[in-house]
Amino acid sequence: MDILQKSSKLLLRVRENRPLIHHITNYVTINDCANIVLALGGSPIMAYKKSEVEEIVAQSSALVLNTGNVNNIEAMILAGKKANELNIPVILDPVGIGASKLRHNSNNKILNSVKISIVKGNMSEIKFLAGLNVKAKGVDSTADNNGGEQVAKKLAKDLNCIVAITGVKDIVSNGRETCIIRNGHRMLSRVTGTGCMTTSLIGTYSSVTDDYLLASVTGIITMGIAGEKAQTSLKNEEGIGTFRIRLFDSIYNINENTILKEGDVSARQIKY
Amino acid sequence: MDILQKSSKLLLRVRENRPLIHHITNYVTINDCANIVLALGGSPIMAYKKSEVEEIVAQSSALVLNTGNVNNIEAMILAGKKANELNIPVILDPVGIGASKLRHNSNNKILNSVKISIVKGNMSEIKFLAGLNVKAKGVDSTADNNGGEQVAKKLAKDLNCIVAITGVKDIVSNGRETCIIRNGHRMLSRVTGTGCMTTSLIGTYSSVTDDYLLASVTGIITMGIAGEKAQTSLKNEEGIGTFRIRLFDSIYNINENTILKEGDVSARQIKY
Amino acid sequence: MDILQKSSKLLLRVRENRPLIHHITNYVTINDCANIVLALGGSPIMAYKKSEVEEIVAQSSALVLNTGNVNNIEAMILAGKKANELNIPVILDPVGIGASKLRHNSNNKILNSVKISIVKGNMSEIKFLAGLNVKAKGVDSTADNNGGEQVAKKLAKDLNCIVAITGVKDIVSNGRETCIIRNGHRMLSRVTGTGCMTTSLIGTYSSVTDDYLLASVTGIITMGIAGEKAQTSLKNEEGIGTFRIRLFDSIYNINENTILKEGDVSARQIKY
Repeated sequence: MDILQKSSKLLLRVRENRPLIHHITNYVTINDCANIVLALGGSPIMAYKKSEVEEIVAQSSALVLNTGNVNNIEAMILAGKKANELNIPVILDPVGIGASKLRHNSNNKILNSVKISIVKGNMSEIKFLAGLNVKAKGVDSTADNNGGEQVAKKLAKDLNCIVAITGVKDIVSNGRETCIIRNGHRMLSRVTGTGCMTTSLIGTYSSVTDDYLLASVTGIITMGIAGEKAQTSLKNEEGIGTFRIRLFDSIYNINENTILKEGDVSARQIKY
Repeated sequence: MDILQKSSKLLLRVRENRPLIHHITNYVTINDCANIVLALGGSPIMAYKKSEVEEIVAQSSALVLNTGNVNNIEAMILAGKKANELNIPVILDPVGIGASKLRHNSNNKILNSVKISIVKGNMSEIKFLAGLNVKAKGVDSTADNNGGEQVAKKLAKDLNCIVAITGVKDIVSNGRETCIIRNGHRMLSRVTGTGCMTTSLIGTYSSVTDDYLLASVTGIITMGIAGEKAQTSLKNEEGIGTFRIRLFDSIYNINENTILKEGDVSARQIKY
Repeated sequence: MDILQKSSKLLLRVRENRPLIHHITNYVTINDCANIVLALGGSPIMAYKKSEVEEIVAQSSALVLNTGNVNNIEAMILAGKKANELNIPVILDPVGIGASKLRHNSNNKILNSVKISIVKGNMSEIKFLAGLNVKAKGVDSTADNNGGEQVAKKLAKDLNCIVAITGVKDIVSNGRETCIIRNGHRMLSRVTGTGCMTTSLIGTYSSVTDDYLLASVTGIITMGIAGEKAQTSLKNEEGIGTFRIRLFDSIYNINENTILKEGDVSARQIKY
């Protein structure tokens, strides 16, 4: 089976299993993250109190940590350690890591205490995490794409996890193999939370496979195709309001054939 | 007058009075709860600081407590006690009560300190609250419907309040009379917050009547009809994104006749 | 150039510069505020931890403070002082100031510590702030419009800043000149967050000019025109759900000509 065939099987598996996905995430896009998991076929739970996260993660099939919320880093670490113990994948989205020392330190604390399965960020965030000198401007990416593949590969090796970079061209690496995905549309960058939602999709896929490279690729393809479909559907006078709604529609309606036909990934085979 | 006639009068009364509905609720669906109250014709206020909730509830006509947020239990109790003192109805939605000890304890604390007018949950939550052995999986219901009516009736007696269970078949009981509502569509379970929003609708209706059984039935019918209309309106390629928007549209446009014609409730008369 | 010509230039400048707008705001409408800034062409960042707000505001071009969130007043003051130091405009939306002593005190603390560039509220909030006796009912305005222009003018003088009042008729004053804007539609009051979003638009415009009166007028015109377009576009059976989405669409699609043709402001010239 090539990647897209495997991706479409993964989608089916999500819909059969309705996995519970535990999020500790920011309040800006928390509703969108919950709805995107539901659109894909999973079941979201957003719980962030230290006194309950270990119990919650033990019922879940994946844990998504998003540092757009820097209030609950201790809860993230507790939940992450429990997930590690139970062999549940942990996905980290280091939102705005370069925007403040607090976010930088918070991400370091998590990475030092929890074994992360997948780190997903935009080019600025991943380059910052890789120790490169990147000028931050809020939570959006301003870094150029030069050397992105090398950065992903090296960071994946260093952290011993999957690294996924979203942008015009998406990059996913396990440190040896690197996939490029060319789905998506630039309107995605004009809606808040499309990055967070992509992380939620990756988290949902990672809950039904041990192949986290595949889960990352499939999550990014899913959001990319949804972005393309949402943009194509827009009529005159429609804009990001309608576009955002159509993202949920598209993911709700995506099926194996959509992925097979419209997925645009560089490698059809991955050597592991 | 039969139930549906009374329900449609209640809708008119909401629109005439524009009641202020105080919510202490979770951050996942807080925006949806505010907008659904506005769609129906009420005025929402979301305030959760201990130092202001008593003042806020004193201006309000109903108080909605939703334990999807377990940060503010003390504020909920303060507000609830004040509401009791002022004879303002208090509606409790024990979101995810079976998912963690924290949520279980938090709900117990509220129930021990505040006189609740209406408890509304899904089958898992209500069965858990009734002391039955239910396996929890996050905040969605996994319990079967067996014995639901008996559970509702018994819990209503035990807590001396209205108990409302939402699901494929909705059940509302005051401990003596029990109504079954068959409106709704399964897509409602694919959008986060439809449960919370139903509680907000019930809260809004309860603010203009002393008949909390009727308020609960009317809130559930309103969301059920909105779900049916939203689903019927969907065109090819539309899904839960558009469905969710149409829920707000449908409730904004619902009128007495919609309720009279499309409400599907078992008992046309309730003996009190 | 008259006001509308200046307003349309301001819109172009936002789109060229993509200014970063730092918000410390409430969790009810935080997602809407982020998306409205993106729709206009800016870049939002929502950050509220005391330990990072000074760093974040230093990267930003405007700071929006919204006391619908009374959790983070100290962070607001820290960020505000830093903004003052760096000559970054600070916009205050005193949401629900009359609804509780806590909100009243919180706003006073901010006003006593931070030099505010623009205060924007509804008639109840601004009258309350001006020391008039207004009966509060939650966060919506119940005050009548009598004397609104005088109140705006006097408060602008007292606080030495721009005062903007939104309502059926919008009023903006710098203490000497006062503009009346008649764009908008009453459906705007049936969607939560349209007030907060207007403040975000004003904040975004204020980041690309020193003329805060113009920024305030332009923000209000922009939301007003969007409301008109959204309402006009509604088909049978559509309501506030669709209306809300179209607000984002309209602002995404607004251009200089839209403002020139459809802006409805009393004064075409302002004497400064």
